[in-house]
Amino acid sequence: MWVNDGMTRVISSISVSLDGYVAGPDPTMQDPLGKRGELLHEWVIKLQAWREPHKREGGTTDDPSEAVVRDQLEATGSYLMGRRMYSGGSGPWSGDGNANGWWGDEPPFRLPVYVLTHHEREPLTLGQTTFHFATTGVEDAVAAAREAAGDKAVHVSGGAEAIGAVLAAGLLDELEIHLVPILLGSGARLFEGAGTDPRLELVRVVDAPDVTHLKYAVSR
Amino acid sequence: MWVNDGMTRVISSISVSLDGYVAGPDPTMQDPLGKRGELLHEWVIKLQAWREPHKREGGTTDDPSEAVVRDQLEATGSYLMGRRMYSGGSGPWSGDGNANGWWGDEPPFRLPVYVLTHHEREPLTLGQTTFHFATTGVEDAVAAAREAAGDKAVHVSGGAEAIGAVLAAGLLDELEIHLVPILLGSGARLFEGAGTDPRLELVRVVDAPDVTHLKYAVSR
Repeated sequence: MWVNDGMTRVISSISVSLDGYVAGPDPTMQDPLGKRGELLHEWVIKLQAWREPHKREGGTTDDPSEAVVRDQLEATGSYLMGRRMYSGGSGPWSGDGNANGWWGDEPPFRLPVYVLTHHEREPLTLGQTTFHFATTGVEDAVAAAREAAGDKAVHVSGGAEAIGAVLAAGLLDELEIHLVPILLGSGARLFEGAGTDPRLELVRVVDAPDVTHLKYAVSR
Repeated sequence: MWVNDGMTRVISSISVSLDGYVAGPDPTMQDPLGKRGELLHEWVIKLQAWREPHKREGGTTDDPSEAVVRDQLEATGSYLMGRRMYSGGSGPWSGDGNANGWWGDEPPFRLPVYVLTHHEREPLTLGQTTFHFATTGVEDAVAAAREAAGDKAVHVSGGAEAIGAVLAAGLLDELEIHLVPILLGSGARLFEGAGTDPRLELVRVVDAPDVTHLKYAVSR
């Protein structure tokens, strides 16, 4: 049983195909989620909870997924992501790419973001988001992101490799899988390199059109 | 949207780890589910619905999984399985292995079973179960199993390869995944070789202790 020990929690959520992929094959800068990978995020892109921070009009509000996304945004005090997600934009949060890099002038995070990388670099502030580059390993990166999160949680945004590293280090408290009923056949898998030690316990299911949200408490 | 066209339905259900495996690494005759693979079936082995046809005493009856297993047994008119599941016993239905082969004198099926194989062989009757050996491909095997199922469904019992073959041939109508929150790290994956054509739509979620039952209608 997972017990909140009062420490800043580390959470993650990611869209996964029924055959276990978080991106399709053959990713490119133009198509960072690979072949058919964008199908993984159709469920979120139509939600007002996603469109609002992306400065897009409209969106549905009567979808059970709406509360799932809003809850996650409200719970989050800082972000942690892998180098490729920062530089190449994987996931539905990716920007359009312009002079200020992939995320544009106003990245949708509006909170401190910690990027796992081997390349030292000064922090970069774009709009209301500051990217910090964490070069001394996953433990240090999580510690810094925890410090920045205040009384909220650190959200590990992806990609699969970053989530696997945090899981393998025993630092993840909660993982929400947005299970999308499509088959991608190949691509990047979640849990690659996560080992077999993490123990998971289902704490909530939300059954929405086109996606099932499965939230697991993680312990070791 | 999946529509029942009146034909005998072909259904399948299988326990899958959160990282997508239906068996762990290094399977042997003694340990056909591989390392830690038996953890996939802990949820079913404790149910009366499973223990009864296996002539074992006791079992819980107040678990939401009980109805899931009983419904599947009641829906089934014949079984289809891969050669390895027949000869090596993978899955929670496997027998103890004795003079009459892996399944013993009284296999738990008590319905016609069609085995996908390349080796021609006369039908083998053990107790109330007759095994038929289907050597002319998955389409013929499904057709024969349909014929035998009467007004009930054909249940594709496994392993992953047999389910993948029926899926790839476009012959599966329903797939129920018993999602077990463990990581196996390696082993046999579901959906290997199933291609990306199958379209799946969630029709039911049952949230039980230690397992989540996700039933998908399949179409192409």
